[in-house]
Amino acid sequence: MEGVESINKEDISAMEQPLSTGVITIVGVGLISGSFALAMKEKGFAKKIIGVSRTEASLQKAKELGIIDEALPLEEAVKKSDFIYVAIPVDVTVPVMKQIMDLITDKQMVADAGSTKFVLCDALKDHPMRHRFIATHPMWGTEYSGPEAAVRGAFDGRACVICEKEKTDADVIATVENMYKTLGMHMVYMDAHSHDIHAAYISHISHITSFALANTVLEKEKEEDAIFELAGGGFESTVRLAKSNPAMWAPIFMQNRENVLDVLNEHISQLRKFKASLEKENLEYLIELMENANKIKRILK
Amino acid sequence: MEGVESINKEDISAMEQPLSTGVITIVGVGLISGSFALAMKEKGFAKKIIGVSRTEASLQKAKELGIIDEALPLEEAVKKSDFIYVAIPVDVTVPVMKQIMDLITDKQMVADAGSTKFVLCDALKDHPMRHRFIATHPMWGTEYSGPEAAVRGAFDGRACVICEKEKTDADVIATVENMYKTLGMHMVYMDAHSHDIHAAYISHISHITSFALANTVLEKEKEEDAIFELAGGGFESTVRLAKSNPAMWAPIFMQNRENVLDVLNEHISQLRKFKASLEKENLEYLIELMENANKIKRILK
Repeated sequence: MEGVESINKEDISAMEQPLSTGVITIVGVGLISGSFALAMKEKGFAKKIIGVSRTEASLQKAKELGIIDEALPLEEAVKKSDFIYVAIPVDVTVPVMKQIMDLITDKQMVADAGSTKFVLCDALKDHPMRHRFIATHPMWGTEYSGPEAAVRGAFDGRACVICEKEKTDADVIATVENMYKTLGMHMVYMDAHSHDIHAAYISHISHITSFALANTVLEKEKEEDAIFELAGGGFESTVRLAKSNPAMWAPIFMQNRENVLDVLNEHISQLRKFKASLEKENLEYLIELMENANKIKRILK
Repeated sequence: MEGVESINKEDISAMEQPLSTGVITIVGVGLISGSFALAMKEKGFAKKIIGVSRTEASLQKAKELGIIDEALPLEEAVKKSDFIYVAIPVDVTVPVMKQIMDLITDKQMVADAGSTKFVLCDALKDHPMRHRFIATHPMWGTEYSGPEAAVRGAFDGRACVICEKEKTDADVIATVENMYKTLGMHMVYMDAHSHDIHAAYISHISHITSFALANTVLEKEKEEDAIFELAGGGFESTVRLAKSNPAMWAPIFMQNRENVLDVLNEHISQLRKFKASLEKENLEYLIELMENANKIKRILK
């Protein structure tokens, strides 16, 4: 495992025993942070969860659902916490994270769960507390949002990307990896730029395709009853990401726009090949395109 | 219910009692016909299932799986059957169906389960036995094919489209609708041309998008390990239809090419809107596109 050499005795003991980090603050009270908080309590990592949000209704809901024990303003929450977990739209992550990093001591730990990594890592690279921060992206989600979307047993079996591990203290890495591993995740290490490229290919383009497909069908299929009546499992699975929250996804696409545009151009050109094969009634070419796509079988689990 | 007036007493008794149709032949031994055959036996509609296929291995497999009791050549199978269910690629459906229709008597019934309807209905419109045939499209499927893909409990909760009901004898309608209803399906009636338009919007475009997305990712993401490691639920659900069988889907796209091209052009233009919003860094427009796509929420079950 990368970086194992740098872990000292104290950290190894941290890796062997499930840690009780004591008080955890979640910044943002939604799908990811809510699912994370539920798991942290269940697995014994947190004796108390504090919630921070600009939305009073979300805090109220999160309390009702047993996701958080207390709601506090950011500064107060950070000061009382051993570990701070930030899962908010990526366009507000940088300023909020800088605020948090200015408040923490060498005994505290901070992680984010954002879907883009380059902008954030770049913004924090010279912060004096950078070593207490770990950049993470648990590759899990659903099309739903808000605290009521939080589920028990989330994250299981998925990858968690850790970026710029070399800039984070070993005890922070050990603690956070231990948390994610306890949830059933396996770690994948890469630099922030590589993360954003892979995320564009594997996650962001799927969302754009799905949004565009929903718009296509809504534009062409004026008989909504027909969609409702006829939509089978195939349509539902292809279009389900179109239900995703624009407030969360628009900033992701914008922050990763160069990579997203690159893969979107390729996708449009792939669709044009299907178009050409149909226009020319070239069955052989159409089958060739589909057989190539079938190769995804040997890659998907 | 459309056409109820034309059902006579004999047909009403047929609708009230589950019918034992006796011997059923399935032409094509795959996902749809196999799942249908399993259900027909389980629900007491068939005392015997005969399988017809050009592929010896499929017949063998279907026997092993208890899907069929006997494998016979088409002519012999048809002569021994009360009901013949045709589920083969749409490019071979017309000639095979004509062969069957030339063999049957007024006491037999025939249905197809194809994903396109206009070409078939048009080809059979003047056949003297047209009244013993019912054009059906159960809106259910998975990305898998072959008899080993057949599942128990398929079709449940989905729509079944019946086309040109007015050309089919009432007893055939009653029997076949009773079969599908027993499987948990609800009937939707439309003409063959309308069916093909709706199918292009709601099913065929999802498949093309998914095939093209797989090709996009395979083209851009040269690190297959990264796809394997990072692909989350969103990617998997958007791309799963790309595993579908080209031998089945290419003829569907070709037979419905005008409608498919129409919706494919719209889809490319919808993707270009996303592209433009990113190129111009127009967050407001991007959010507007996504909020429009969110409307699919109120239509999907």
